[in-house]
Amino acid sequence: MIAAHRPRPRHGTSVPELAGGRSPQRYEVTRDSESDPVACRAVTVGRDEMLARHARFDVVGIGNALVDVIAHAPDSFLTDHALVKGWMDLIDTERAVHLYQALGSAVEMSGGSAANTMCGVASFGGAAAYIGKVSADDLGNVFGHDLLAVGVQFRPGAFDNDVPTGRCIIVVTPDAERTMNTYLGASSLLCVDDIDVGAVAHGRVLYMEGYLYDRAEAKQAFRHAARVAHEAGRMVSLTLSDSFCVDRHRDDFLSLVDDEVDLLFGNESELMALYQTETFEASIVELRRHCPLAAVTIGAKGSIVVTSDELIEIPAVPVRRVVDTTGAGDLYASGFLYGLTTGVSLAEAGHFGSIAAAEVISHVGPRPLVELRTLVE
Amino acid sequence: MIAAHRPRPRHGTSVPELAGGRSPQRYEVTRDSESDPVACRAVTVGRDEMLARHARFDVVGIGNALVDVIAHAPDSFLTDHALVKGWMDLIDTERAVHLYQALGSAVEMSGGSAANTMCGVASFGGAAAYIGKVSADDLGNVFGHDLLAVGVQFRPGAFDNDVPTGRCIIVVTPDAERTMNTYLGASSLLCVDDIDVGAVAHGRVLYMEGYLYDRAEAKQAFRHAARVAHEAGRMVSLTLSDSFCVDRHRDDFLSLVDDEVDLLFGNESELMALYQTETFEASIVELRRHCPLAAVTIGAKGSIVVTSDELIEIPAVPVRRVVDTTGAGDLYASGFLYGLTTGVSLAEAGHFGSIAAAEVISHVGPRPLVELRTLVE
Repeated sequence: MIAAHRPRPRHGTSVPELAGGRSPQRYEVTRDSESDPVACRAVTVGRDEMLARHARFDVVGIGNALVDVIAHAPDSFLTDHALVKGWMDLIDTERAVHLYQALGSAVEMSGGSAANTMCGVASFGGAAAYIGKVSADDLGNVFGHDLLAVGVQFRPGAFDNDVPTGRCIIVVTPDAERTMNTYLGASSLLCVDDIDVGAVAHGRVLYMEGYLYDRAEAKQAFRHAARVAHEAGRMVSLTLSDSFCVDRHRDDFLSLVDDEVDLLFGNESELMALYQTETFEASIVELRRHCPLAAVTIGAKGSIVVTSDELIEIPAVPVRRVVDTTGAGDLYASGFLYGLTTGVSLAEAGHFGSIAAAEVISHVGPRPLVELRTLVE
Repeated sequence: MIAAHRPRPRHGTSVPELAGGRSPQRYEVTRDSESDPVACRAVTVGRDEMLARHARFDVVGIGNALVDVIAHAPDSFLTDHALVKGWMDLIDTERAVHLYQALGSAVEMSGGSAANTMCGVASFGGAAAYIGKVSADDLGNVFGHDLLAVGVQFRPGAFDNDVPTGRCIIVVTPDAERTMNTYLGASSLLCVDDIDVGAVAHGRVLYMEGYLYDRAEAKQAFRHAARVAHEAGRMVSLTLSDSFCVDRHRDDFLSLVDDEVDLLFGNESELMALYQTETFEASIVELRRHCPLAAVTIGAKGSIVVTSDELIEIPAVPVRRVVDTTGAGDLYASGFLYGLTTGVSLAEAGHFGSIAAAEVISHVGPRPLVELRTLVE
């Protein structure tokens, strides 16, 4: 089956389709557009211009604020509990309790996809902020501490509920693959009011985590944050996060990418899910027509940076032993984003991503254990 | 200075002093003794007899239920915060918040000295139970889960307060030494009512953690548990935990060992603190007169098992790299206790201790990562 999706016109403006894709230009939408989208002022802004503007932060991330509960288990644990290796499942309280009880000793450490990415950006030496919702409980404190400890500015939104801080139960099998079961808790309550518009307007790149797309309020918050970023002339990026998340919200993702995304992160299965293609190559063809810039991870083979006129292959950085792949994609994104904001070439930005991913898969846990800046000096 | 302490008469019964120490016999105290201690019935019970009695648990531990917050930091962190390497400090909420804020990213995992020991016993294949107080919060759940996950029966006492679960902030310096800062929280509220007398009466050995001795209610709880154990003909053991803890409560410790302890665990500095001797050798002389059986760790050199008529030197099991010494003493005790309850020789029990200690210092975290039973099969 070939891609069902075709690019849609953007805010009533017809998008010029070039051979091989669109040029990396953006349409800046002023505040007026909210009252009358058709009358919006479309201003072409290039990538370099967006990134060059003075900013307080290099990257501002928005995502599900989660503490990871990491435990090792044999493959039989997955089959016994109807878990599919490598997937992320959303679970309710009951299932969270059941799975946790069935697991062996666990270690708790801060996680959350976009939060991991922001820690990576900070570890490279970039200025990063993070917007995500926790509760005023132990795990919420842990989450906030671990961001601040590496220099990421944390904007937790309002503590307005009794829902506990979200947690992701990660089962690591002997092959180092991780299977994730997420109880969203407070993180899923992120809404428009939690978006610190000051931070978003002052970040060179806004980075949004697709996982958050599972709730309507979060979708609105994304739209809001993206508009604020674009009004301030900033770049907007999105990571697709998970092919099943993409399946659940395909139309919304397509429309978001169409309207607001300047830079897309994803892997092979996520892109094939987004464009409903049978081959990875076919999804890349769609991607080039749909988004000005993308960084696509392809597992152990590395990644491909995709623009309208370039396909840049980035090899993975070899590691002695893969211990735990948790955070590989998150840290890849951190390297790429850091590279972009410091003005290196796209190929070099991709290489920064490979370096960060290699570091994080060499040990247990989703965040770097060494200062990533020391690996690129 | 030579030992100020001399063994005291036990419940009004004069203790026969043999050349080189006392024989490993015990005086069983019946419930009547509580109303009239002088009229207690002293029954001589040998070690083998105590251990041979049918029991539901091999070891029942009582201790401070703590979640460890482990972070790596340079030596300068210790001097900047007036911490003395290798020590354990009790800290209040304010200091806990301050230290935690100053630290980098941390990992949370269940700890607590006696709880680590019970996990070790279970990991060897022994039946273990643990009595310690947590709160009904995230860290309390984590603590309980990690015990149950390795098969330790958890008796948490009543959730009767708003005090959060205790935590131990552990700073690991590059030399793998750990410096501990304990906010006791709920764990310090353990009292007589929290002692599950059924569990204590059905455990071959009661194992009590000296750290708990910092509060009067806990001292009473220890006395109560020890009496229950002895009434049921069980063995009572104590670990001194920390030389400063011993300094703070020397008389109480001496009296407890005198009255109730059949097996004492400690290290060089703890024993010298207990007996106020200037040399380790002098403290061993005192120890042999005071307690029928002791297992004394001497750091990288291993341990010495001390009875009235034997001094058995147990070499350490070498490890490729010492990563984190947290839990070394706790796991040594687990091996020794497991060995005792399975009827191996004292030398072999000490060797089990060395094996368990070697495993736990080879990685971050205070509990074994492999099934200890596989290391002694």
